[in-house]
Amino acid sequence: MKKKVVLAYSGGLDTSYCVVYLTRELDLEVHSVLVNTGGFTEDELKQVEKRAYAMGVTSHHTVDESENYYESSIKYLIFGNVLKNATYPLSVSAERVSQATAIAKYVQEIDADYVAHGSTGAGNDQVRFDMIFNILIPNIEIITPIRDKKLSREEEIAYLQQHGIELNAEKAKYSINKGIWGTSVGGKETLTSDQTLPEEAWPTPLTAKEKRTVRIDFEQGEPVGLDGERLKPVSLIQRLQEIAQPYGIGRDIHVGDTIIGIKGRVGFEAAAPIIIIKAHHTLEKHTLTKWQLSWKDQLAGFYGNWLHEGQFHDPVMRDIEAFLTSSQQVVNGTVSIELNPHRFHIIGIESENDLMSNKFGSYGEMNNAWTGDDVKGFSKIFGNQVMIWHKVNKGGEK
Amino acid sequence: MKKKVVLAYSGGLDTSYCVVYLTRELDLEVHSVLVNTGGFTEDELKQVEKRAYAMGVTSHHTVDESENYYESSIKYLIFGNVLKNATYPLSVSAERVSQATAIAKYVQEIDADYVAHGSTGAGNDQVRFDMIFNILIPNIEIITPIRDKKLSREEEIAYLQQHGIELNAEKAKYSINKGIWGTSVGGKETLTSDQTLPEEAWPTPLTAKEKRTVRIDFEQGEPVGLDGERLKPVSLIQRLQEIAQPYGIGRDIHVGDTIIGIKGRVGFEAAAPIIIIKAHHTLEKHTLTKWQLSWKDQLAGFYGNWLHEGQFHDPVMRDIEAFLTSSQQVVNGTVSIELNPHRFHIIGIESENDLMSNKFGSYGEMNNAWTGDDVKGFSKIFGNQVMIWHKVNKGGEK
Amino acid sequence: MKKKVVLAYSGGLDTSYCVVYLTRELDLEVHSVLVNTGGFTEDELKQVEKRAYAMGVTSHHTVDESENYYESSIKYLIFGNVLKNATYPLSVSAERVSQATAIAKYVQEIDADYVAHGSTGAGNDQVRFDMIFNILIPNIEIITPIRDKKLSREEEIAYLQQHGIELNAEKAKYSINKGIWGTSVGGKETLTSDQTLPEEAWPTPLTAKEKRTVRIDFEQGEPVGLDGERLKPVSLIQRLQEIAQPYGIGRDIHVGDTIIGIKGRVGFEAAAPIIIIKAHHTLEKHTLTKWQLSWKDQLAGFYGNWLHEGQFHDPVMRDIEAFLTSSQQVVNGTVSIELNPHRFHIIGIESENDLMSNKFGSYGEMNNAWTGDDVKGFSKIFGNQVMIWHKVNKGGEK
Amino acid sequence: MKKKVVLAYSGGLDTSYCVVYLTRELDLEVHSVLVNTGGFTEDELKQVEKRAYAMGVTSHHTVDESENYYESSIKYLIFGNVLKNATYPLSVSAERVSQATAIAKYVQEIDADYVAHGSTGAGNDQVRFDMIFNILIPNIEIITPIRDKKLSREEEIAYLQQHGIELNAEKAKYSINKGIWGTSVGGKETLTSDQTLPEEAWPTPLTAKEKRTVRIDFEQGEPVGLDGERLKPVSLIQRLQEIAQPYGIGRDIHVGDTIIGIKGRVGFEAAAPIIIIKAHHTLEKHTLTKWQLSWKDQLAGFYGNWLHEGQFHDPVMRDIEAFLTSSQQVVNGTVSIELNPHRFHIIGIESENDLMSNKFGSYGEMNNAWTGDDVKGFSKIFGNQVMIWHKVNKGGEK
Repeated sequence: MKKKVVLAYSGGLDTSYCVVYLTRELDLEVHSVLVNTGGFTEDELKQVEKRAYAMGVTSHHTVDESENYYESSIKYLIFGNVLKNATYPLSVSAERVSQATAIAKYVQEIDADYVAHGSTGAGNDQVRFDMIFNILIPNIEIITPIRDKKLSREEEIAYLQQHGIELNAEKAKYSINKGIWGTSVGGKETLTSDQTLPEEAWPTPLTAKEKRTVRIDFEQGEPVGLDGERLKPVSLIQRLQEIAQPYGIGRDIHVGDTIIGIKGRVGFEAAAPIIIIKAHHTLEKHTLTKWQLSWKDQLAGFYGNWLHEGQFHDPVMRDIEAFLTSSQQVVNGTVSIELNPHRFHIIGIESENDLMSNKFGSYGEMNNAWTGDDVKGFSKIFGNQVMIWHKVNKGGEK
Repeated sequence: MKKKVVLAYSGGLDTSYCVVYLTRELDLEVHSVLVNTGGFTEDELKQVEKRAYAMGVTSHHTVDESENYYESSIKYLIFGNVLKNATYPLSVSAERVSQATAIAKYVQEIDADYVAHGSTGAGNDQVRFDMIFNILIPNIEIITPIRDKKLSREEEIAYLQQHGIELNAEKAKYSINKGIWGTSVGGKETLTSDQTLPEEAWPTPLTAKEKRTVRIDFEQGEPVGLDGERLKPVSLIQRLQEIAQPYGIGRDIHVGDTIIGIKGRVGFEAAAPIIIIKAHHTLEKHTLTKWQLSWKDQLAGFYGNWLHEGQFHDPVMRDIEAFLTSSQQVVNGTVSIELNPHRFHIIGIESENDLMSNKFGSYGEMNNAWTGDDVKGFSKIFGNQVMIWHKVNKGGEK
Repeated sequence: MKKKVVLAYSGGLDTSYCVVYLTRELDLEVHSVLVNTGGFTEDELKQVEKRAYAMGVTSHHTVDESENYYESSIKYLIFGNVLKNATYPLSVSAERVSQATAIAKYVQEIDADYVAHGSTGAGNDQVRFDMIFNILIPNIEIITPIRDKKLSREEEIAYLQQHGIELNAEKAKYSINKGIWGTSVGGKETLTSDQTLPEEAWPTPLTAKEKRTVRIDFEQGEPVGLDGERLKPVSLIQRLQEIAQPYGIGRDIHVGDTIIGIKGRVGFEAAAPIIIIKAHHTLEKHTLTKWQLSWKDQLAGFYGNWLHEGQFHDPVMRDIEAFLTSSQQVVNGTVSIELNPHRFHIIGIESENDLMSNKFGSYGEMNNAWTGDDVKGFSKIFGNQVMIWHKVNKGGEK
Repeated sequence: MKKKVVLAYSGGLDTSYCVVYLTRELDLEVHSVLVNTGGFTEDELKQVEKRAYAMGVTSHHTVDESENYYESSIKYLIFGNVLKNATYPLSVSAERVSQATAIAKYVQEIDADYVAHGSTGAGNDQVRFDMIFNILIPNIEIITPIRDKKLSREEEIAYLQQHGIELNAEKAKYSINKGIWGTSVGGKETLTSDQTLPEEAWPTPLTAKEKRTVRIDFEQGEPVGLDGERLKPVSLIQRLQEIAQPYGIGRDIHVGDTIIGIKGRVGFEAAAPIIIIKAHHTLEKHTLTKWQLSWKDQLAGFYGNWLHEGQFHDPVMRDIEAFLTSSQQVVNGTVSIELNPHRFHIIGIESENDLMSNKFGSYGEMNNAWTGDDVKGFSKIFGNQVMIWHKVNKGGEK
């Protein structure tokens, strides 16, 4: 009886090569799995399935992970206002973790003997897949034909043709990776340090020109309403993305550290993630205390980096999620945002939990809860230690 | 002989009131000092001096602190990419610290008996002035007439008229505070949580419409060249501000925690600071290691908050500055930026110290310095502890 | 009708003065409250009550906060292994917070008009009481006779005698503050920087000389068993204290920053807290991942300091508690400790959740889960970025 | 002509095997190097050299790294009060980094073709050696015979005998690793979680019984005097170790995370390091501000961990050292310590820079620099935000 391999399959050239290689060369029973985290339409999923069977898989399985992906990752990226290096919403990184985890689960379900992925040897994804498989299914051997054989694109195409499979051989000028939390864009410019992506590189053309306002409702930190309509967060993100991406909002280039130590650059468009994070953060500035904001920053910075490095299954991530969830109890309210071509800004917020209330004294206006003498006393005590330090160490006054 | 008081003087209504009150009611010899941190032109300074003498000061002194302000604060705000709450370049906060420190020094120079400032009882500035005076000149009594007497604008005007002094009594619709590191804007909208500032509120109207590129040269983290011309940092900031502010770049509203615990909201326009910080940060992403970036973030976040709270003289600030200075050794290169109305983006960077070099393998392309097997080994060891954790605690495989 | 004041009452000189002053001078109806956090025996509580009525209180109330104190504070101090400045288990600081909170609750229950405490103007306690009252009962005026009148001990005694009350006027050589999480000791030596406390200063004399082993069982981070007997944590702490304090264990001097900015020094004996924390920490080193240990350290350091400064009611404390609680899921097992005069050491731990298991390879012995080549690959990738950094910046090899 | 290999040589079984293997099997010219970081006497060094030549090395070289080791690592471990997991002074970890760096330098000096080390595949040292070689001499191939061939002790001995070399074949019951910053002790007990080391395992027997006081002088954080005699830090450490180790001070077991993800346990005796760190930390508590202490803790925790993981050459380490050096400007004074069998305690400190001075008010005594009203005001403002939070979110009082 043939041994079973589960293949993380996307329908692209690399994983197509894997199907043929695993069936023909290694004589394995291939079970392809596509984990959809929001980047595929129903039609695309059907096409992928058809192609998989045409290439010889024994079974093909589609897992819809959008909801899980939101619940296990995106939600906390919102809670933490996570923008890696103050720029990137971690679009692809978080997605890979959800995909690898779903694949590992499927390997256990069908009791497979091997697991395979189509990553090359130059990026982050190989580490994420390898490591999550090592963690969750440590006794299952991992097969990575593209990495091991260091194949070029042309060699893969030739091999497939040899086995009677014609794949659209034309390489797109820009490689696009679409997900619910943003779409990455790579091309010749992102391989340099000094060039930016041209207009044509962006998947969504700029078509929206009219100023527009949107209102997002948050409950305990989660986005739950758009322009007055209650929506599930995943739907809200998708709806907002459709509205805002045609404005060209949320386009940027991320420069960052890969897990393997080299620097990388990647373009992305992520209108909905960027707007939601800035809106959420503004709401937090009105509702959280100073030290909540400060600690959230530190923990979320680590959380984002560690997730980026594929370390989702470290229990410290559950501990940080517990902190973040606790911090969101009063992050309730509505944020108004104005959209314009290439930019947006927060108009303001309304919240029952707003700590900036005229009842307690306004910044720059006189107040009733304390006196000038209170502040004098505060200033004296607040600077006491440094005053003593200067007296002791600077000679100061005698 | 009359006793001497040094008054932190700006030429506005509050400090004018103080001159008259200190001379007439308290019978003091008033020595007014204006500390210019880049917000005043030569003409304005002359006007202020003239008015001071007209109101009865014994001496008036102007201190130009622009260079000191850059050397002691702005430089480190650049090194640290400091944007409070991911938004605000600390325009006013850092300025006040430089001003208060210069005033304290002057009090010692002329051996004054008192020091006075015109802060009200509702904002941050009172704490910054009080505390820095307590720290640097702890034996000098602080006089704060506006705070102590809780005077309204109208009462101050009436009092001045009574003493024969006519001040432009019309209150500006928006209160503006101009400095080299940004201009703050307060108005009725910023006293609410839900409204944004109208176009008319911004001090610099939007007049630049044509796309333009600027290039900033950095040496050891400091901005030293603009479009190929070598400039002192202070001049560079001013020049860039003149170029970029007419694009409406760097306008935003900061929501933050005041030192006295209430939440406040303030508008600002700060094209040069925002552009310099994003350019500098991008250059760092290319030249610093992962952990340098991470620790800089944490230390700079604290540095910005502690500076905002007036704690500049805590020796921990010197320690953080030593860290930041050390981190800038290789932050050299040129950053290109495209300006457009209301927005800008980084085109790219050129640097001898760029760690993203094709020589060492490019992200997404195959490399020579390591093999697929190296990464396999890395992934295994990198996930080892979490693998063990799952085996031990999740039952996992036996 | 007389107005009601709730007085935080301990039975000592300062609060006795307060009873008389509040009844006789301010003509208030005094309701004294003693909040017991483990420092008083039943007998002592009865004595205090009797004395309160004798001095003229309208009602006296004893609140037993031991369990609450454990649940709301001590538990998290254990989870966080909190030793301020690597030394002090926060014995008194945490206690005051529980006491002030209980008093505020009682003020609301009996709808009092005022609240009073007997703190002087020189320590931390005044801030803790003031601030917690300001936070929880902001509309209730706070009365602090001792601080306001700057009374000396002798003046207080004279005043009480004048009103027919004789208090043991002899000042103890060392002031002792006993609580469940440790006993503080102040004396003339602790007012200096260079002297240590003499043997006679320690409340518990050294009487245990024989080596002894104790075993503590932990469940989800909480101490729940002692030498095989299941106990409630509060009872366990008290039992362990009775066993271990006679060994002179956990005696030390804490040097720290007061809330008001001056440095202070205080002796303490806290055998049970110190043993429990070191035992708990050792168990964590066996059961938690590297990053759990690291983040716990940072968060717990802040938690301890912020609690020390009386900021227990900042919601960030709830967020940190959520993190800490999450981290304790697998902190289960038994720790063996050897006690000797003046010292103890951890013998070892047994735990189902121990990550140090021979099954996964032992430190210093060869293993099966990975190969030498895996480590070679790991080392290469783990040092990749710094290798590149040196090539770029140090010229290195070409 | 034969190719040259530099071998990191200690004179033990593993590196002896390497000499024979590299000369006989690989036909290389072996240049052995012993880097002494304080663990070898002159006599031992001569023995090792003699043995090296006897086994066939072409050259043998001894590098004395004690001073460098102190200047580049130990100094900062003192500045940072670094005790990994609150216990371990990093005795061996820091040493290996110095050794590997010295070896890499020697490889460049003699222009060798290869570098070899005798690490097994189960510990931290292999990663430290591999990585530092990869970073500093990336083009030099690394040879690791023991790891690659997974040799047992017995196989190594047999192989050496086969080549005419008799090595003391008896395995010591406890493996000892002696260095200037502590001696590690491994044995069968440290391979378990539940057993402690017996008295016989400790290299230095307990012979000192009489109570004794020592005084250490610090200048800018460095230990420069012992009992009034000025000494170089390395000599001071060695002298103090000779005095204090016979008391059995500084014996403990460290439980920690290895670089490769498994948990490990190792005994150590380190009287001088432990005493110096506690003395230094106490002096800092008297001389540094609250936030200096807090940030030093966080940075030093990371510094220790990152050094432990062999990442000494990451430039972030230089940045942290800059911070630490800056923080030590006022860490001057003398610390008195009492030594007793198995324990020591700090008596007190004397320092010109002591911030705990009666001049500025003493803890628990009334002061002159501020009033009770100042503290009232401070308490109100210090708790302002949390008061508002409770009003807004808990309904509080209306």
